[in-house]
Formats: sequence, structure tokens, C-alpha cells
Amino acid sequence: MYEAKAYCAASASAPLAPARITRRDPAGHDVRLEILYCGICHSDVHQVRNEWSSIMPTVYPCIPGHEIVGRVTAVGSQVTRFTPGDLAAVGCLVDSDGVCAQCQAGLEQFCPDLTLTYNSPDRHLGGVTYGGYSDSIVVPERFALRVPGNLDLAGTAPLLCAGITTYSPMRRWQVGAGSKVGVVGLGGLGHMGVKFAHALGAHVVVFTTSPGKQQDAVRLGADEVVISSDANRMRSHAGSFDFILDTVAASHDINAYLNLLRRDGTLTLVGAPQEPLAVSAFGLLMRRRNLSGSLIGGLAETQEMLDFCSTHGITADVEVIPIQKVNEAYERLLRSDVRYRFSIDMASLRLE
Amino acid sequence: MYEAKAYCAASASAPLAPARITRRDPAGHDVRLEILYCGICHSDVHQVRNEWSSIMPTVYPCIPGHEIVGRVTAVGSQVTRFTPGDLAAVGCLVDSDGVCAQCQAGLEQFCPDLTLTYNSPDRHLGGVTYGGYSDSIVVPERFALRVPGNLDLAGTAPLLCAGITTYSPMRRWQVGAGSKVGVVGLGGLGHMGVKFAHALGAHVVVFTTSPGKQQDAVRLGADEVVISSDANRMRSHAGSFDFILDTVAASHDINAYLNLLRRDGTLTLVGAPQEPLAVSAFGLLMRRRNLSGSLIGGLAETQEMLDFCSTHGITADVEVIPIQKVNEAYERLLRSDVRYRFSIDMASLRLE
Repeated sequence: MYEAKAYCAASASAPLAPARITRRDPAGHDVRLEILYCGICHSDVHQVRNEWSSIMPTVYPCIPGHEIVGRVTAVGSQVTRFTPGDLAAVGCLVDSDGVCAQCQAGLEQFCPDLTLTYNSPDRHLGGVTYGGYSDSIVVPERFALRVPGNLDLAGTAPLLCAGITTYSPMRRWQVGAGSKVGVVGLGGLGHMGVKFAHALGAHVVVFTTSPGKQQDAVRLGADEVVISSDANRMRSHAGSFDFILDTVAASHDINAYLNLLRRDGTLTLVGAPQEPLAVSAFGLLMRRRNLSGSLIGGLAETQEMLDFCSTHGITADVEVIPIQKVNEAYERLLRSDVRYRFSIDMASLRLE
Repeated sequence: MYEAKAYCAASASAPLAPARITRRDPAGHDVRLEILYCGICHSDVHQVRNEWSSIMPTVYPCIPGHEIVGRVTAVGSQVTRFTPGDLAAVGCLVDSDGVCAQCQAGLEQFCPDLTLTYNSPDRHLGGVTYGGYSDSIVVPERFALRVPGNLDLAGTAPLLCAGITTYSPMRRWQVGAGSKVGVVGLGGLGHMGVKFAHALGAHVVVFTTSPGKQQDAVRLGADEVVISSDANRMRSHAGSFDFILDTVAASHDINAYLNLLRRDGTLTLVGAPQEPLAVSAFGLLMRRRNLSGSLIGGLAETQEMLDFCSTHGITADVEVIPIQKVNEAYERLLRSDVRYRFSIDMASLRLE
């Protein structure tokens, strides 16, 4: 075991503050990463503040962070895919049973015995797992991704959650050349959705409540931007979309978007509003539409996504901050005052 | 043109009563059927009583009926698939444009220019189309189905709506040997769903609010019956279904059933509750579940369904009534007092 630096929340109401934590030494199949960048995901704020207490109560101290890019500094004796000096990344998962039907299908995110990167029971040290707001992390090599050398590392970190979360449903629902794709909401997830849909060859329409984001949407790859309060524009797209990615976690009128799907079209939710969605059954029947959900992605598909990003030169648009500004960043995130993801430069933690 | 006998509603509040109507003579691609049996669909009651006034206002006089089995009595000069004396059937559709993408895909039910069997603008005579509560009907042969000779005709009539409505989504979502299938609600649609799922080789679980229907469900082909108020039994099926067919048109807790789906499982609505469904986004995300709708089926698939029924000896369980009892049957239908579909013996109309 060794001591690592981290930023932790001591309670649901405490700001994040410097702390020392214990990590295991890398053994067997483990790799240790020096963390270079860690993205700030909206989930981090929810978990730190115990806003998901009914389904995933937070254990304190809580060290969030699951958009991790780093460099391998040590490997266990059985590691075959990494050597010290390699770039590597870690996303939302750090373990799973490896034998269930979900793991066998490469969908480790649905394993009934998975270990999340933070706030999951730690099989090695007891307590809970500690995430990426830290100078290092130790994970089984199966949960470490290879990072293509041509990508900006600060912008790569958010690919590990915002990236795979938006890439996976587009692949599952066969977005490609000729597809008409909608992206609802232009935040951390939405801006990645636009980049992927564009790179996959789709005609991309962004739906946003913010007129100020129109130019940005086009820059990111949108072919059209619709202000969702414009009923005429909305109506003009009725029944025309193959796929819509809905990234909005706040309550909103889902039927307005379901009605834009063509026959057999799919709307996939990747945000999870707290309140139930009011869904018109009639709208689903009339064009045999689908409403579905999606949850990050498995390891193989995450690697595929990183390789796709390498080929297409895709990273997240990030504002790089030192970890000392993390509490301020949380407040700005809640005001949507970031384009489009914060990425923590973990060199700042070494100064603590 | 010729005069036909029918039962019609003169207004939303009037009982159905005998009437004489005008039908066109069969020309070109038309076939004329002497109607032998017509099923009573819940839609008939809604339409007759103008309960869908906001989306499909009823034009009076209204002659409902879209579960029609009969015998061909005359054919137009260009008809190639039928000759007088053949059995034939007509479902919910009697025309479509034939050229749009939906028609080309064999999904005429989604044609933007389709003609429903009743209460649609009549392209030939003006006014609206008149349905199957009549002694005869004239339709383009493209909308006439072949009726296998080994099926009971009274029980075949409901296949044209209740049958195809439940068969189509099971085929689309690949129900087959080894599938675990749920059927929610054991009425006209549900009882067909059970028969089809069983014949397709699935393990079939019926969900009903009525303990009195347990024996019947097993007789129809259910492997298990769950009384939906039994929380323990519901929980024991969590995350285990490949496909659930939800036939309930009344408001109900859809999440209780969504939670029973396994990863990538689909729940298809074929009933359309008036009130929006309250859908938990979290439930959809967690196992990447789908909520979809389905609407009858295209002509080719309807024929496939009839042929499947022939092979497997499937018809609807019907109570045969004379048309003079149709108003009483409507009241009993609203009380779910029928197992499981009324089929009108149209010989009774010839006595009027």
C-alpha cells in the first residue's frame, strides 16, 4: 500500500479539500497510473452531494472522478498489455465479475457485480473505491484503455464518460451516412454527441433552449440548430429523424421529440431526469417508435470509441483548471457555465 | 352501385341500428365479399361513441367493423388472386397509396395516405368508408387476405385486428424458442398474444389483475400467471424478460413492467392509454431497455400471420352473437365480460 494525494468531500455539504488516501500496490493484473487529467462529470456533483441517496448513497470521504487519463508507472507481474510509460485511461468501471453473460457480451457496465471507479465497495482495501481526483490510481489492466498518441490529453479525459455515453447508443442504433440525427441539449454529453454524429456521417440537428449556442453547435458539427421553443421549426421536422440522443437531465417534454422520429426511429435517453417522463402511448404506436435508455459502454466499445476519436481527431472541448478551482467549477457546471467540460490538470495536485 | 344491409350508429349516443347503405360495384382490382363474420374490436366502441374526437372524429352514420371474414362473390376484371367462392378476409385497411416508402416496405399501416376500413374518406363514393357490420364489402384485392381452409371462420375474424396487432411486434422483436415473454392484460389482444408467444416457442408469463383468469391463461398457453398486485411475484421476475407485450389501454404503472425486462429487452405497447405514461428514465438506462409501440401490421405480415395460424391451429376464442345483440355486446365488452372476443354471425343480418 502507498499514500496518494487526492481531493475529497468529507460530507454532502462540505467543499472538496485536499486529503491523503491509501491505494493498493499494483499486483498481478494491476496497473498503476499517474493521473494527468481528470474530467468533471455532472455525476461527480450528484454523488459528492449525495443527491442519489435513494439508489447510490454516498460513503464519505468521497473522492469522485471517472474520466481519467494518465501514464502507467507500474504494472503487476501478470500484466501483458501495458508497460511503464504507456498512456492509459480509466472510465466509470474498475472491476466486474468477468464471467457473467453481460461481461461475456462485452457489456461490463451491466455486470451485476461491477465495481464503479468511486463510491463502490473496494474489494482490496475495504471501504469504497476512490476516483480520479487524485495523483494516481490502481486498476486491473482489463479496465485500462489504451490512449492513442495523437489526442490532446486534457480533451481525452471526458471521452471516458461523456464520450462513450454518447458514442455507444449511436453505434447500437446504427447511426451512419444518411442518418438524420437529433441531439437534444448542448452540454458535456450533447457536444460529444454532435461530434460523433457528424463524424459518423449523419445529418445532425441540435435542439437547444439557448439561442446563444447556435454558432457553437455549427462549429461542433451541427447541420441545423433548432431552438426548441420554436414550435414551427419543431413541427417542420415531424416524423423525420432516424435517431435522437436526449442528453437533458432536467424535466422536459419528451413527446415533442418522440414526435420528430420517423417510423421505427429511436430516441435514446442518456440523461436521467428525477421526475418520471410523461410519454404519450399514441405517439409511440403511430410510427412504431422506440424510447430507450443507454448507460456508458463496455470496455471493448470504449476502446473502439477512443480509436474512432484518434482517426477522426475528436476530443472534448475542455476548460482546463487546477484542482484548487474544483469547487468553483462545480458551481459553474450547475449554471451550465462551461464549454463544454472541465478537465482538471492533475499536475496542480502535486503542489499540495 | 348497389344497396347493402348494415348496422350503423346515427350519433355518438345512438345505439347501433339497421340501415341500408350504398356500396360500389367491384371494378378493376376490386373484390366483393359476402361477409360471414365480423369481430367486435374495442376500437369500434371508441369510434362509434366519438371518444377519439381529437384525433379521428367520427362521421355519422358510422358503420364500424374491421375484423372481417367472408366469401368472394364478385371480382373486377383485373383481379388475379381471387375468384368467386374463395374465402377472404379484410382487416383495418382498405387502401393506401402503394408507392410511398411505407407501402414499399410492406408497412401499409403507416402510409400517409391510407384508407381505414371505416370512418376514412371514401375515394370512390365520397363520404366515409363503411366497415364490416354489413352483409358485404368491396375492397381492392391488395387489401383482401387469403383465409386458410382449416380455420374456424368465426374465430378467424378477430385475427384481422387483435391477431395481427399482437403477432407483428412479437415477430419484429424476434420472439422465438427460448424467449421469455410477458403478456400484460388478458383480453381480446392479450389472449391472442399468449397464443402466439406460446406457438412461437416462448416461455409465456401472463400478468393480470384478475385471479379468476389464471386457469384460462394456462389453457391459452401461459407457462406462468402473475397477479400483478403480488409485489413478491413481480419482484421475482425482475430483469428477466426478453419481451413484454402490454395490451392494457387503461392507465397503469408501466415501470413495474419495464423493470422486469432484461438488458436490451423491449416492452411494446399495443393499447393506448389516454393519459401519458409516467416512465422512469433510470429504469430505461439501467439495462438499456426499450419502450416501443406497435400498430396492427402490413398486408404481407397479416397474410403470414393467417398462414401461421393455419399451421398452428390458432384462432381467437370467440362468443358468436347475432348482430341484433351488438349493443348489448358493447356494454359487456366495456365490463370485460367476454372470453375473449365477440364475433358477429352476419347471417343474422340477412333476416333484417
